[in-house]
Amino acid sequence: MREVDLVHRIRKLAASGYQNRAVREGIGDDCAVVRPTPACDFVLTTDFVLEGRHFHLDTYSPADIGHKALARSLSDLAAMGSEPLFCLVSLAIRPELASRWVDAFYKGLLALANMHKLTLAGGDLSRFDKVVVDVMCCGRVPKGKALLRSGAKPGHKIFVSGPLGAAAHSNWQLRAEPRVSAGLKLRGLASAAIDISDGLSLDLHRLCLESNVSAELNSALLPIAPGASLDEALHGGEDYELLFTAPQAKIRKVSGTQIGSITYGKAGQVRLNGRVLKPKGFDHFR
Amino acid sequence: MREVDLVHRIRKLAASGYQNRAVREGIGDDCAVVRPTPACDFVLTTDFVLEGRHFHLDTYSPADIGHKALARSLSDLAAMGSEPLFCLVSLAIRPELASRWVDAFYKGLLALANMHKLTLAGGDLSRFDKVVVDVMCCGRVPKGKALLRSGAKPGHKIFVSGPLGAAAHSNWQLRAEPRVSAGLKLRGLASAAIDISDGLSLDLHRLCLESNVSAELNSALLPIAPGASLDEALHGGEDYELLFTAPQAKIRKVSGTQIGSITYGKAGQVRLNGRVLKPKGFDHFR
Repeated sequence: MREVDLVHRIRKLAASGYQNRAVREGIGDDCAVVRPTPACDFVLTTDFVLEGRHFHLDTYSPADIGHKALARSLSDLAAMGSEPLFCLVSLAIRPELASRWVDAFYKGLLALANMHKLTLAGGDLSRFDKVVVDVMCCGRVPKGKALLRSGAKPGHKIFVSGPLGAAAHSNWQLRAEPRVSAGLKLRGLASAAIDISDGLSLDLHRLCLESNVSAELNSALLPIAPGASLDEALHGGEDYELLFTAPQAKIRKVSGTQIGSITYGKAGQVRLNGRVLKPKGFDHFR
Repeated sequence: MREVDLVHRIRKLAASGYQNRAVREGIGDDCAVVRPTPACDFVLTTDFVLEGRHFHLDTYSPADIGHKALARSLSDLAAMGSEPLFCLVSLAIRPELASRWVDAFYKGLLALANMHKLTLAGGDLSRFDKVVVDVMCCGRVPKGKALLRSGAKPGHKIFVSGPLGAAAHSNWQLRAEPRVSAGLKLRGLASAAIDISDGLSLDLHRLCLESNVSAELNSALLPIAPGASLDEALHGGEDYELLFTAPQAKIRKVSGTQIGSITYGKAGQVRLNGRVLKPKGFDHFR
């Protein structure tokens, strides 16, 4: 299998997927060419999915890995309240993985991409002794309307878009569904947003740091996933629910579970039932 | 070293670099937020730099690796005739590499970024047992003016922006300089362009495939780098010169060395002095 043949196969797969009109030139040139929409900003994110760290080849099918790699980036687009446009996929594979593995990987990725009207517009390919995926996703939002982490203010209420702790409880989540449509509905309502990829305690800490505020959670309000413990709901990663804040005047218009309030206090500090909650979620460097 | 501290250091380094006005929100949120320029398209590319494949830790300093990782992507922007705007950097590092290594890596990357008025706007960080870098670069071109691989026509002349074979001859090139300004000057003049990352024979083959034409090279015209052989100039990778075509009416306005002509014939076929030249350049999957 030559690189040119592999690129040809991927290009055919990409061409069979959803073709977002923003993408003017996709796979096949030095760069993808994208036409902006008037009065819109672009939002861009990139996320690794690494063999032995985010998945193992014996428990994840290639389609699962493709799904997961895109889901992680799409979840970041969701947290900005943005409409997905396209992605670039960098894939390094082990020499022994055949073109059938590569096909299945892209089919898994494209199935999720199609659901969200996202186009595979380019990327990079290499051989390596481990499977490495890095997905860059780009979306758009009306000018100045991206949901940032930095807009939470004391008095705003804290919400989550769904149950927490399911992924931690079952040890992994094969096919997480990024909350893209929930994110779109939060535009103009949420004052700040983040996706819960590394656990509620750590991601809420991050949101509070950027907003220069504290947070107070009420454990009785937490939507704990069936079977999961309070600890899994507080610190488990990979739930990919949205965590957001909204001012009192808008809380009747948002859909989600209210779990606490933003307060004055030390930037980044999170309290549970009045006691300081340390950010124990997933940290890549611990 | 916690991830949050490492991100804080990188954020400070990025803030000390060039701040491109297109970037409205950089490191610190789920996504970077970028404002398009009216009447411009965006071009985007992503490139891996992998330990053991593109570099070894004992021969490349962290600053060299940072430079190389950005140079590969910037060279793709150059080949589109685009002005660099920003990059996202995904970095996976070995546990034993200290924060000093990470600092030096980003300093090497940012030194090159500053030269090209490019902003480090985000990325991803992870631990891994090998160093893996994936750099996504984004630039802009006036609407519809990106230099594609697909515009070469029979009768157009073929050019290179500089000498070939230097990197192959010296076994590696520590600090390649992407030809960004040369690419900008080709807008409106070149009919097709590609950067020579994998060797003249393979990259010209790719350009001809996309343009559905053949090419005829004249070995006497090739600008062979001092000390390099004809074979190194034809098939050596990592020169990062631009390879482009221009119609007869415009060849006096382009700067570069004319090395041959585009001809009718089998799509993708390259001939040297009348004999078929096989694309022997670097192929990741051979």
